[in-house]
Amino acid sequence: MCGIFGIVGHPEASNLAYLGLHALQHRGQESAGIVASDGERLRAHLAMGHVADIFTAPVIESLPGGAAIGHVRYSTAGGSRLKNAQPLSVEYVGGQMSVAHNGNLVNAEELRKSLEADGAIFQSDADTEVIIHLIARSKKATFEDKVVEALSRVKGAYSLLFLTEKKLVAVRDPFGFRPLVLGRLKNSWVLASETTALDLIEAEFIRELEAGEMVVIDEDGLRTSNPFPPSRLGRCIFEHVYFAKPDSVLFGTSVYETRKELGRQLAREQPVPGADLVIAVPDSGVPAAIGYSQASGIPYDVGLIRSHYVGRTFIEPQQSIRHFGVKLKLSAVRQVLKGKRVVVVDDSIVRGTTSRKIVKMLKAAGAVEVHLRISSPPTQWPCYYGIDTPSRQELIASSHTVEEIARYVTADSLGYVSLEGLGNAVGDRERTTFCTACFSGKYLTGNFAPGSADEEKPTPRLVSA
Amino acid sequence: MCGIFGIVGHPEASNLAYLGLHALQHRGQESAGIVASDGERLRAHLAMGHVADIFTAPVIESLPGGAAIGHVRYSTAGGSRLKNAQPLSVEYVGGQMSVAHNGNLVNAEELRKSLEADGAIFQSDADTEVIIHLIARSKKATFEDKVVEALSRVKGAYSLLFLTEKKLVAVRDPFGFRPLVLGRLKNSWVLASETTALDLIEAEFIRELEAGEMVVIDEDGLRTSNPFPPSRLGRCIFEHVYFAKPDSVLFGTSVYETRKELGRQLAREQPVPGADLVIAVPDSGVPAAIGYSQASGIPYDVGLIRSHYVGRTFIEPQQSIRHFGVKLKLSAVRQVLKGKRVVVVDDSIVRGTTSRKIVKMLKAAGAVEVHLRISSPPTQWPCYYGIDTPSRQELIASSHTVEEIARYVTADSLGYVSLEGLGNAVGDRERTTFCTACFSGKYLTGNFAPGSADEEKPTPRLVSA
Amino acid sequence: MCGIFGIVGHPEASNLAYLGLHALQHRGQESAGIVASDGERLRAHLAMGHVADIFTAPVIESLPGGAAIGHVRYSTAGGSRLKNAQPLSVEYVGGQMSVAHNGNLVNAEELRKSLEADGAIFQSDADTEVIIHLIARSKKATFEDKVVEALSRVKGAYSLLFLTEKKLVAVRDPFGFRPLVLGRLKNSWVLASETTALDLIEAEFIRELEAGEMVVIDEDGLRTSNPFPPSRLGRCIFEHVYFAKPDSVLFGTSVYETRKELGRQLAREQPVPGADLVIAVPDSGVPAAIGYSQASGIPYDVGLIRSHYVGRTFIEPQQSIRHFGVKLKLSAVRQVLKGKRVVVVDDSIVRGTTSRKIVKMLKAAGAVEVHLRISSPPTQWPCYYGIDTPSRQELIASSHTVEEIARYVTADSLGYVSLEGLGNAVGDRERTTFCTACFSGKYLTGNFAPGSADEEKPTPRLVSA
Amino acid sequence: MCGIFGIVGHPEASNLAYLGLHALQHRGQESAGIVASDGERLRAHLAMGHVADIFTAPVIESLPGGAAIGHVRYSTAGGSRLKNAQPLSVEYVGGQMSVAHNGNLVNAEELRKSLEADGAIFQSDADTEVIIHLIARSKKATFEDKVVEALSRVKGAYSLLFLTEKKLVAVRDPFGFRPLVLGRLKNSWVLASETTALDLIEAEFIRELEAGEMVVIDEDGLRTSNPFPPSRLGRCIFEHVYFAKPDSVLFGTSVYETRKELGRQLAREQPVPGADLVIAVPDSGVPAAIGYSQASGIPYDVGLIRSHYVGRTFIEPQQSIRHFGVKLKLSAVRQVLKGKRVVVVDDSIVRGTTSRKIVKMLKAAGAVEVHLRISSPPTQWPCYYGIDTPSRQELIASSHTVEEIARYVTADSLGYVSLEGLGNAVGDRERTTFCTACFSGKYLTGNFAPGSADEEKPTPRLVSA
Repeated sequence: MCGIFGIVGHPEASNLAYLGLHALQHRGQESAGIVASDGERLRAHLAMGHVADIFTAPVIESLPGGAAIGHVRYSTAGGSRLKNAQPLSVEYVGGQMSVAHNGNLVNAEELRKSLEADGAIFQSDADTEVIIHLIARSKKATFEDKVVEALSRVKGAYSLLFLTEKKLVAVRDPFGFRPLVLGRLKNSWVLASETTALDLIEAEFIRELEAGEMVVIDEDGLRTSNPFPPSRLGRCIFEHVYFAKPDSVLFGTSVYETRKELGRQLAREQPVPGADLVIAVPDSGVPAAIGYSQASGIPYDVGLIRSHYVGRTFIEPQQSIRHFGVKLKLSAVRQVLKGKRVVVVDDSIVRGTTSRKIVKMLKAAGAVEVHLRISSPPTQWPCYYGIDTPSRQELIASSHTVEEIARYVTADSLGYVSLEGLGNAVGDRERTTFCTACFSGKYLTGNFAPGSADEEKPTPRLVSA
Repeated sequence: MCGIFGIVGHPEASNLAYLGLHALQHRGQESAGIVASDGERLRAHLAMGHVADIFTAPVIESLPGGAAIGHVRYSTAGGSRLKNAQPLSVEYVGGQMSVAHNGNLVNAEELRKSLEADGAIFQSDADTEVIIHLIARSKKATFEDKVVEALSRVKGAYSLLFLTEKKLVAVRDPFGFRPLVLGRLKNSWVLASETTALDLIEAEFIRELEAGEMVVIDEDGLRTSNPFPPSRLGRCIFEHVYFAKPDSVLFGTSVYETRKELGRQLAREQPVPGADLVIAVPDSGVPAAIGYSQASGIPYDVGLIRSHYVGRTFIEPQQSIRHFGVKLKLSAVRQVLKGKRVVVVDDSIVRGTTSRKIVKMLKAAGAVEVHLRISSPPTQWPCYYGIDTPSRQELIASSHTVEEIARYVTADSLGYVSLEGLGNAVGDRERTTFCTACFSGKYLTGNFAPGSADEEKPTPRLVSA
Repeated sequence: MCGIFGIVGHPEASNLAYLGLHALQHRGQESAGIVASDGERLRAHLAMGHVADIFTAPVIESLPGGAAIGHVRYSTAGGSRLKNAQPLSVEYVGGQMSVAHNGNLVNAEELRKSLEADGAIFQSDADTEVIIHLIARSKKATFEDKVVEALSRVKGAYSLLFLTEKKLVAVRDPFGFRPLVLGRLKNSWVLASETTALDLIEAEFIRELEAGEMVVIDEDGLRTSNPFPPSRLGRCIFEHVYFAKPDSVLFGTSVYETRKELGRQLAREQPVPGADLVIAVPDSGVPAAIGYSQASGIPYDVGLIRSHYVGRTFIEPQQSIRHFGVKLKLSAVRQVLKGKRVVVVDDSIVRGTTSRKIVKMLKAAGAVEVHLRISSPPTQWPCYYGIDTPSRQELIASSHTVEEIARYVTADSLGYVSLEGLGNAVGDRERTTFCTACFSGKYLTGNFAPGSADEEKPTPRLVSA
Repeated sequence: MCGIFGIVGHPEASNLAYLGLHALQHRGQESAGIVASDGERLRAHLAMGHVADIFTAPVIESLPGGAAIGHVRYSTAGGSRLKNAQPLSVEYVGGQMSVAHNGNLVNAEELRKSLEADGAIFQSDADTEVIIHLIARSKKATFEDKVVEALSRVKGAYSLLFLTEKKLVAVRDPFGFRPLVLGRLKNSWVLASETTALDLIEAEFIRELEAGEMVVIDEDGLRTSNPFPPSRLGRCIFEHVYFAKPDSVLFGTSVYETRKELGRQLAREQPVPGADLVIAVPDSGVPAAIGYSQASGIPYDVGLIRSHYVGRTFIEPQQSIRHFGVKLKLSAVRQVLKGKRVVVVDDSIVRGTTSRKIVKMLKAAGAVEVHLRISSPPTQWPCYYGIDTPSRQELIASSHTVEEIARYVTADSLGYVSLEGLGNAVGDRERTTFCTACFSGKYLTGNFAPGSADEEKPTPRLVSA
């Protein structure tokens, strides 16, 4: 997953981009990059690691100019290399351009093959490079027309920021899979994946870009258009469930309030009569756990403490430690749990291994019953639109019933929110404006090119958009 | 502040020391070190930074042997240098010795002058080096007798772990200022500042060392003694209020439960009739906020989100951002706060500047009233026993009334737990077994040598122990 | 300038590539890279810095396979960035390919514009990327036919190594500007810029590739062809004068012997009657100084000592030091120079500033006369074929007579080898097989696209090839 | 081995110290450090590595003040650790002091044991720490009297620079083993191991300190005294043979000229009639090779090229390469050597393994005869005074005749300069002013405590001083 940020018309553009990216750090921790334009040329700095470590004062000073875009990228297994960092910058017939992309294309491999057949060369694994090639090959006159032409050949999820020497262009795909918001800071325009980035730099939140909207900002000001054919909406419901930062406003509603409402819904759908307390798997499970507590009347408490100091890798002793991986991140509060019947709320179950470790840890700490409640439906299908889920085989819910999962994770009971409940909680009762593919298998694009992941991810059921 | 860890009798001693230090990382993030003994010689590795970054597999392999001690050190202003990292290792007439120290001596400067007058040289700023010199000069026959002789000249707070080629010695000062617990992992003995370190490595918690107790572990097994004159107890109450990790059991009671009880006590002493919700300043204020909510019936909610990605320094734009420092760490959840009368619970107020930023942030996010509640009494006096508090002048409560502080931090009301309430919450109604100097000014040692801090920290009222 | 190395058919290909690049380190110190093929895919490691620092054992292990190519790159002002490091690797319709290039194209800018007009995007500044694009767009069936088609559109200097999953292709341009030699190590074939790399790894020197020759090595063995139209030769004479390592055999003759012969020729053309001793500017001036001494009978001695520890940058004190830059690299031996009439031999004069500092240093150390002798003709013209010379304006000899230069560098006399003498020394009396453009202005290519350097480098006289 | 540098009275003291250390880098490449005084306190920076890498502009700025001392340290096996880096700085009863030491004490172990018995603790392995302890324990009134008292208990080799807040003290031991020179730069005094450091910073060479001389520089100016009992001289002859930089003036004569004279003496004592050419093992053998050529009339030439890019470690392929270690550093010039009878001149033979590789390399490159000539007598005895020689067993000449060594290194003949010839060349015909222990076994100190090296280094014959 990724986060993007752009700003035009501010003398300290790259400094604000860096702060904006820091606010979006939860969307990607592998690499970060900023490209700035001083009106004449683009300058870039990209590196592996966290925003706060990469962008020192001398680096920021080396990125002068009134416009900048930035990107944070998530660490996906295998593809963790600097050459995949973004924004991706190239020279082409129109000069210089740079792009920051959040999302994932489903016909990238097909387009890539066709471009290669036509002589294109590729230097990264990123699907974003396909977009760049399509723009460079467009015969349209203006940059924005080239972008429109290129994107009309592309299918999938994209919130994009383009920067040229003179112009910033922002586009959100017609389904609106990934968020993108517009803000205003004095005389400058700001674009960001989430409103939390606007809040940090004290920019005013103007509105979310519409699905399929393109915004162009240059010396003539801001122009907007919607150059793509209309489509149904497919806003990513998993952003609300897990991915976005709770203080953001996403697709028109508060992430925090949505999660709390999911907790309330969960309490209604999956009650645990006689439980002593509700705890969360921190930090992502906290809002739903509070909602659960409110709706059920069962007291909320803190049964698991999250460490602030989790590093990349730890050396396990040969005489190994039970629940090692989880224990380095979470500690159980024995005195809270001892002798209690506990409802533990998490946002989702992926492989089941972590949930299993957590349940066992809670019991080892004295809980007499552990009832696992999940504030979303079973995750059964991989995401092709940018969320970094594993292949279908690895998703425990794709091949196990709820009861089997409960047994595997050793919980006394297990309950999920229903798909209907989820729709209600996000205010989409008919479930026609969100993409729920990871839960429902209903993919909104009729075209797939999941590339090397192909072999691992089985063909999903396709539905027409 | 610091954390210490020791283990004897385990083939992977240094690996377990590294995991134990990781669990104690909250007690010090500046530097970390491990010294291991293979029975013949000591080997050390010390570095600036976090445990998870310092101890890679090759480093652990370079520290063989069945015994190890380790140390994490807090970053105190100015003294942040590798030569102050611990464990401190030397050669002396008896061979090699290494020491890890949690606490602070009050007569170090005086002893240092006397040792220097006698020809000693000092290579670090640490008061711990004084102890080393006293041991090296002792004419006693055994190592433990040398340690006792040395410590009998020393005043202040110390939980100490000594490692020689053949022996581990653990000592807690007669006041018992700093915690130190004993655990058992199969055939090995474990010592640690807090029980959370035992939990991580799956060691069984045996008991806390008594104040003034010395434990010696060598090939003959474990021996214990209490070689110092009896003294009243002075266990650090601030460990319970803020410092220790909530899942630890400290001085006989659960840190988490103590903090929740402080929240309940706070609700009783400092109610906010008509408030809409209780929120915490995360993470340290969470348990007390939950306690406050439980006792008051006002719903608990999450109004501030803590970022996981806070780095050391950030570059502020010239056109500066309101509440910049706090905002990088905390985000306000607008939808929770909007139009609400909010009780916000924190553990303490030091200078007042952070509280002021937080209150203003909450109001900017829509809170109509902000009532600040502190789960400890006003912090008026500097700590000379190891907690890294600023000088008296900088402590806002040393020169301002509660009302003045409320006005400064722009809160609609401000309330602290009383000293009595604090005593009750920790189960020390008479307040005779805890050190409360930071709140009461009643210092338990009649001798001060606060060194360079001297000029900044005004002479406190002294009370006889 | 750059050095290249390739090997096929050896189980430790990347390790030998690393040693070969170390032997070629004098040809480029900015960045280094190796790409290896295990028959299925290419793996690359590129970094800024020296070969010995970049290629650790784990890095070498991450580059498995029986074939590898490598590259060292010189630090040219401004363009010092990792993205310009080589080998340059891409995916295209035919799979993966990687290329290492020594030389410089003169029509790169023109081709780049044409490729861009056709939709190509460029990620580096290197002219090598043009070649990659031309190959990717070729419709020929085999990789080697694509290479030939691509190179037939390219003008300038190139010794190239291509690596695909299954094949290594080596090509030398029809002028033969840059060297490229073929060697044999047991069952493997080796290609290198200079014979010194063969010597280090104990490969047998088979022969130099012919100008315009293409060698293809794959599972069917080695095939050679000469697919380009015949051309006059244009072997770079500056390789002999300065660039190559003295122990190499270059264009059929020993570099060391050639330089010594240049020194003898210099003695004949530019004698210094009555001089007391001949010294060299180390290390490049040593062979010619010895030759001068032999031919003139004036004793050779060491008047300047070269430091082994020269770093990238030094901090000059405000109260500045005379000849600072040169002094950090060279020390004068006072006792050798004192009171003497000294002949000092260097290989060339570029801007004149270093020569001036050296002459002044020698006089400050006691030399009563300093006669500067240069073992090549005046460097008057910039090189467009890969040697990193400054623009014409900066070349002192382009606008100053020998007498004026002598006055500027404060030498008592100054003498260069004549163009005729240079031709004789390299065994090309008619000067029809070497490129002497830097001395004569006779460029062998009728087409220039020196790109951004264009503005700085004045139009040279062109001669037909 | 080590190099030291000091300066008093210059506003950019630490910057000049850094340049001075760079000029002395050949005396030690393991670690470097500078300590500066601003009159109030000392500030230090020490690190592993080369001077040019360690001292960046911000580091130099962090070392303000008008006085500074610096140190470069040689990498001795095993003891390569930052805690052994110098200058060594401590606090003691008199305030702060820092010391930089070139040389080696022979009674350090004995003094260390006695100090430890008296309660001293040691943090490094360095004998220098003994001196610090002795000073700190002295009851004398002034710093210089403390220094004299301390040094009167110490035996061995020392050129020392002490820095306190207000004073620089320089001392050379009564034998004068290690060099130390005094210079003047405008209003500041400079001290350095060798004159080459004065030359670099343009300081005037005043004179060498006398053996046993102490120089004190403070606000009252420079005072000199000779506080130790008179002794015979024992200036290290190996400094002239190999260690010092050739452009330095050492013990009153030019290093370069001494080495050339050694070459001439070698030609007289060990002629090679009928040889075709004389070559050197670069760089240290060059002056003697030129001297040999001059005295013998056999032409000097360059048969071995030294690489400028030798790193710390190289990865040898499994199918190993002949003469691997030497080949990475030296390349043979085949065309110079082919078919020739070659005299190769080196300064010394230690273990014989390198010489053997060089001889074999020369023959592999075509030399028909290789006659090895050494510009010093056989190295038979370890040095206890600061030169990093191996133990006696490892010195090939301690157990092999010249003929046996010739056979081992596969040379056609081998010849050394005689001890008499060496004495003549350095102008000490009676050999009463130099230490020749490494060649003669005549150690000048009657007391040894070579510590852990003890077991490896056999007891030498002792002679009275």
